[in-house]
Amino acid sequence: MTAPHTPAAATEARLLTTTDPRSGARRATAIAVTSDASVAATAARAASAFCELRERPRTWRAGLLRALADALEADREALVDTAAAETGLTAARLDGELARSAFQFRLFADAVAEGGYLEAIIDHAGPTPLGPGPDVRRMLVPIGPVAVFGSSNFPFAFSVPGGDTASALAAGNPVVLKAHSSHPLTSQRAFTVLAAAADAHGAPHGTLGIVYGQAAGAALVADPAIAAVGFTGSLSTGRILEQIIAGRETPIPFYGELSSVNPLVITDGAAAARSGEIAEGLFASVTGSAGQLCTKPGIAFIPRGPAGDALVEGVVARARAADAQTVLNGRIHGAFEQIRSRLVSDGRARSLVAPRAGGEGFSLTPAVLTIDAADATAAVAEEAFGPLIVIVRYGSIDEVGAALRAVPHSLTATIHSEPGETEHRRALTAAVTDLAGRIVYNGYPTGVRVSWAMHHGGPWPATNTLHTSVGVTAIRRFLRPLAWQDAPAGVLPAELRDGPADLPRRVDGVLRLAGA
Amino acid sequence: MTAPHTPAAATEARLLTTTDPRSGARRATAIAVTSDASVAATAARAASAFCELRERPRTWRAGLLRALADALEADREALVDTAAAETGLTAARLDGELARSAFQFRLFADAVAEGGYLEAIIDHAGPTPLGPGPDVRRMLVPIGPVAVFGSSNFPFAFSVPGGDTASALAAGNPVVLKAHSSHPLTSQRAFTVLAAAADAHGAPHGTLGIVYGQAAGAALVADPAIAAVGFTGSLSTGRILEQIIAGRETPIPFYGELSSVNPLVITDGAAAARSGEIAEGLFASVTGSAGQLCTKPGIAFIPRGPAGDALVEGVVARARAADAQTVLNGRIHGAFEQIRSRLVSDGRARSLVAPRAGGEGFSLTPAVLTIDAADATAAVAEEAFGPLIVIVRYGSIDEVGAALRAVPHSLTATIHSEPGETEHRRALTAAVTDLAGRIVYNGYPTGVRVSWAMHHGGPWPATNTLHTSVGVTAIRRFLRPLAWQDAPAGVLPAELRDGPADLPRRVDGVLRLAGA
Repeated sequence: MTAPHTPAAATEARLLTTTDPRSGARRATAIAVTSDASVAATAARAASAFCELRERPRTWRAGLLRALADALEADREALVDTAAAETGLTAARLDGELARSAFQFRLFADAVAEGGYLEAIIDHAGPTPLGPGPDVRRMLVPIGPVAVFGSSNFPFAFSVPGGDTASALAAGNPVVLKAHSSHPLTSQRAFTVLAAAADAHGAPHGTLGIVYGQAAGAALVADPAIAAVGFTGSLSTGRILEQIIAGRETPIPFYGELSSVNPLVITDGAAAARSGEIAEGLFASVTGSAGQLCTKPGIAFIPRGPAGDALVEGVVARARAADAQTVLNGRIHGAFEQIRSRLVSDGRARSLVAPRAGGEGFSLTPAVLTIDAADATAAVAEEAFGPLIVIVRYGSIDEVGAALRAVPHSLTATIHSEPGETEHRRALTAAVTDLAGRIVYNGYPTGVRVSWAMHHGGPWPATNTLHTSVGVTAIRRFLRPLAWQDAPAGVLPAELRDGPADLPRRVDGVLRLAGA
Repeated sequence: MTAPHTPAAATEARLLTTTDPRSGARRATAIAVTSDASVAATAARAASAFCELRERPRTWRAGLLRALADALEADREALVDTAAAETGLTAARLDGELARSAFQFRLFADAVAEGGYLEAIIDHAGPTPLGPGPDVRRMLVPIGPVAVFGSSNFPFAFSVPGGDTASALAAGNPVVLKAHSSHPLTSQRAFTVLAAAADAHGAPHGTLGIVYGQAAGAALVADPAIAAVGFTGSLSTGRILEQIIAGRETPIPFYGELSSVNPLVITDGAAAARSGEIAEGLFASVTGSAGQLCTKPGIAFIPRGPAGDALVEGVVARARAADAQTVLNGRIHGAFEQIRSRLVSDGRARSLVAPRAGGEGFSLTPAVLTIDAADATAAVAEEAFGPLIVIVRYGSIDEVGAALRAVPHSLTATIHSEPGETEHRRALTAAVTDLAGRIVYNGYPTGVRVSWAMHHGGPWPATNTLHTSVGVTAIRRFLRPLAWQDAPAGVLPAELRDGPADLPRRVDGVLRLAGA
């Protein structure tokens, strides 16, 4: 197991700082920026761990994931305290996020034990319409060491102990983490906890590694030992990483979750029936975690007329009355006002509630903008991380459909409608199907359920279009197919040998459940 | 349905030529290079067809695929004649390839009817360890219009009526074909046959389209309506297409099958037991279809010593006695000798059999090179399309392992060994696992079975690492996940509604067979 990186190992012992977003106070840490040599050594250890790790049986790997979950929970208090000081998130929110991270590890453990994710297929030798066919067996195998970039906004669930780490390990790959600059101490602590638990479970040296600093992240993505990259962050950084990958001798899959404005549409009927309830739910969804969720509804379509007015008024009143919230870091704090004023400055979006000045550290109050559907193009094309919502007023569902064509691809789209509005619901569903990865009905897109069916992805730039980063199917990102032809049983993985199987398989074209 | 492109529709009626590779004689066709405007119009028709096509039920789509298979077979004689004149391939080979193409359409029809490829998952609402969970349902949906680039070497099975076309249509996407310049008349005829059958089956206008000419192919990949690209061809052209994709506003998945040297290893035991049989099988695999198969074994590791000598002698004798074969086009013909002499000119690879000069058209005789395992690095890194094999002589399995590290990632790797050689077989299997997408034992990699388990892919540059282009799982390339949260039954696809299902699904974590 790789020890957390220490200053002694760095060529230049440039130390990272950490900032308390509630005060803005910055202090030094004992964590050094990782040197290029140390990045290469960490990647090399991952590569050598891979040779051993891939041979471990599924039961062992499920056990590893459960051990990681237990270890996280055992250190809950210290992890939450450390994260609270670096992120400004509340202890309740961080507690929930840690529980979610542990749950993720256990859900992937269940999936590994069940085995369906391997997509095992056996075609026995035999006559085919094209002549005699050889015996061909295929399943998914781990892709190799995975670089995982932690996010700013989820110090646990999308960072060191997050979903990318869980799914890459579940697939059988070592993971090298790039700690997010906003929470180095949290990253280091979580890494130490996971690494110790992996060690105790007998994981090969190098199963988990971590690097610190922007240059180290770039060097990691360029390292030949790295076989895939998981990234949650900005579109601009995502593009830089993609360029590094394009310059590699061997390009590798890049799984970026990059940007999402998450349109939400409220029909006439829904506004008429539930304006108060929706104003409350929408406002909570926009401002939860200070609006720093990739599924935050950034743009809401609300009908013109009295019911829509009442709904808007409900959101506006709540925004005016809201307390200030602390955002994660100075970059988000600065960008929020930049994006907000850019949306206003072209003269089409109007400010309904401007953020109030003042407050310690990186604090913000919610902002509400409004725009007519006909003018929506300019105002909707940019994600504003933080408690900001653009309200688009519309006259007809057709107008919504036209405006939606200007909305960038997103992780989610949400439709509020009433039971009788079948046609509107159908038209809106059709309008958002190509736009989003998840369609939410009469609810809110924030609060992503971690489950088998969850899809947290969407057409680019929401993600790379083809995969999810939340839920069990996220594991597919870190696997590749391999086929064996006429192989002696001795070289086949246990999952592909004849006889009763402990996983579902497709045999000679017919899907069979485990045990068959 | 789009009519085949005619000169009248082109801005400049620059006509394509076609060449008979058996004589080298070139003649004009009536097929014009497709103008940029016409490419855009074809892509736009595909986009509008997509809106209708995606709504058709699986039974309809399975019927479409079967109708295409029937139509191909009904035109078999004319298709084979046309292809024989443009490719120089034998009628027997082309007959088999047409049968394979029809079989592919039918296999995908079976898969569509069965429905497992949709990966349907239902998580009902209910309590979870993290609190109440919403109802989430997920399945794969078609990605959008797919550009398919036909290959030179399979005028049917990897071209207009090929596997990419079948899998993209099976997924529910329209297809715009880029005809290969080596066989425009074959492409046009196959397209006409398929388009008429699709029309007769009631497919929406624009379900199939075709463009001709290199610039048209580039414009097609850049077109915003195109959602994915399937390509079988050279690494250099693949790289150009990837660059075009990188320049798009929205990047899209690129599925290239680009290059493969397909190492084959013969152990001491196998050489001793079967030198005559292996010499015959290996020579047939290297020279079948004039060596123009992406799975051709391009490099064979043969032990030093008498048994290996006998095996080499068997290959050499067959190569010396071989008749000339016609290759597909002038480019392949020219590149073959260029690559062969480059492999020899550094002074390490030695020529055992040089191609004999002469012969009409683009004809070649087989070439055999040899090299020591210690020197193998330089000689093995390049695919030579055509009847060429590099024989690497080795002293120990460790030497093979070291030399294999210099072999580029490939579609296949092959191991010939005897039952007692358990350790060697295991070591060689480990050595090729990261190198290839399919491992063949005591056989030959050419002759790719079209089946559920087949994987025809491999780490880049064999393909994009993650997917196959042959076999049923190829369909996954042209699908993306979509989730519905708390959706009224009316907006859900039939496959995700409660009640007995006509496809396998995972419900609340448990996989269920169709009917359950």
